[in-house]
Amino acid sequence: MKQIQSKDNPLYKKALRIAQGRKVGRETWVWLEGIHLCQAWLDRGYEVAQLWVDAERLELDQELQQLIKRVPAQQIIQLPSALMRQLSQVEHGQGVGAVAAMPEHVLGQTIHHSCVYLDRVQDPGNVGTLLRTVAAAGIDAVYLSPGCAAVWSQKVLRSAQGAHFALQLYENVSIDDFLERLCVPLYVTALEQAQSLYTMKLPPSVAWAFGNEGQGVAPALLQAASQAVYIPQSTAVESLNVAVAAAVCLFEHRRQHGVN
Amino acid sequence: MKQIQSKDNPLYKKALRIAQGRKVGRETWVWLEGIHLCQAWLDRGYEVAQLWVDAERLELDQELQQLIKRVPAQQIIQLPSALMRQLSQVEHGQGVGAVAAMPEHVLGQTIHHSCVYLDRVQDPGNVGTLLRTVAAAGIDAVYLSPGCAAVWSQKVLRSAQGAHFALQLYENVSIDDFLERLCVPLYVTALEQAQSLYTMKLPPSVAWAFGNEGQGVAPALLQAASQAVYIPQSTAVESLNVAVAAAVCLFEHRRQHGVN
Repeated sequence: MKQIQSKDNPLYKKALRIAQGRKVGRETWVWLEGIHLCQAWLDRGYEVAQLWVDAERLELDQELQQLIKRVPAQQIIQLPSALMRQLSQVEHGQGVGAVAAMPEHVLGQTIHHSCVYLDRVQDPGNVGTLLRTVAAAGIDAVYLSPGCAAVWSQKVLRSAQGAHFALQLYENVSIDDFLERLCVPLYVTALEQAQSLYTMKLPPSVAWAFGNEGQGVAPALLQAASQAVYIPQSTAVESLNVAVAAAVCLFEHRRQHGVN
Repeated sequence: MKQIQSKDNPLYKKALRIAQGRKVGRETWVWLEGIHLCQAWLDRGYEVAQLWVDAERLELDQELQQLIKRVPAQQIIQLPSALMRQLSQVEHGQGVGAVAAMPEHVLGQTIHHSCVYLDRVQDPGNVGTLLRTVAAAGIDAVYLSPGCAAVWSQKVLRSAQGAHFALQLYENVSIDDFLERLCVPLYVTALEQAQSLYTMKLPPSVAWAFGNEGQGVAPALLQAASQAVYIPQSTAVESLNVAVAAAVCLFEHRRQHGVN
């Protein structure tokens, strides 16, 4: 285990840049804040570049002691609470975070499996909740259009609760790039000229597109869709939150295909 | 229409306190920020005490001009942009907000209809999304335990998108007070000793309880439940967001009872 005492340590300065979401070199690094995210990452068999731990809290906190056992000693760095608080991106941090290399997936020639396309979903909390919902629904690939919240940002990581590590994530995929690869039927949610989710038989593999919070999905997606779908809702409110609408669709699909 | 130029105006000072979520006298006032919330409020036939409008933006903005037509002139107050920005609780406000008396509902002797009980749901965004989802599912009463996010706070109002005005909301209702009034079957979501949502026939009227983000529902609710329910999900993530879990349950109920 290493000990770092100075804020001028080069490794610490690099970690700080990464935690703050700034670029470091050519590689794409990510800051995984807190016990749960680090655990979820390690559970997937991924490695960390460094695990940063508050030395004072480590002495007292059994959960932290358990966590560091899972990481090779040479990757663990202990540091004073004051330095750890600088690294931490949340108000009441747990005294731990990891620097890790972001998994990168290269867009294939074709898309043959169930997946989700997010069209300009701007709110980081919505994107995070969507990822968590998609993973829980058993789908493993998400394509994000330009204009979506940055998928590896701290806010998205926080609300996705580790779902990132269960998914293949493709950022900055234009509608054209997505459509020209797509070999499964495209279903989009729409309020007009759409069929009720509860009166249709969903095919085994579906690509679902969910759109911007205010504007919904782009016309190009609607035109390319095999089916436009609406969720039969009360008129008491105008619409559903995008992550909630996605949940209703994805779990109805799961129900129809007998996953109990 | 009134004009207010000074930040020392007593009515302005009172509105500022209300907008900032501080108490003003014995009555319970609420600040409704932005065009959409004001519209949703007026759509329900409710009145505003004052509608505060940025005078400079009013001249240019047709949506604002439409909105003020719906409010009696003596309730409209125009003010300079600098004062309006102080009132506004969001970064890029729309130059309008209303002060209104919060609707208060008195807990009845019995609860005979479908409803939702929220047990220590702490995140304001989750509470707001839950309200929006509940209203969209056609349920009109929500009971909130002590420890839930304050239901009339700006963050909850923002994510509920006007759902507040379609619902009867009861705050600080203890589990005991809720259970002793309840005359419909209680369904709670739980991960253990529960039955799959997709293998059960839901009764026409259900009280649903959804619990704290980390801990789920309290043991007292589990014990009192007619049925514990789980949502069949992939093991790729530990659990669903509470608003998402609620959406899956409430819309499955809606589907089973033939609301297409």
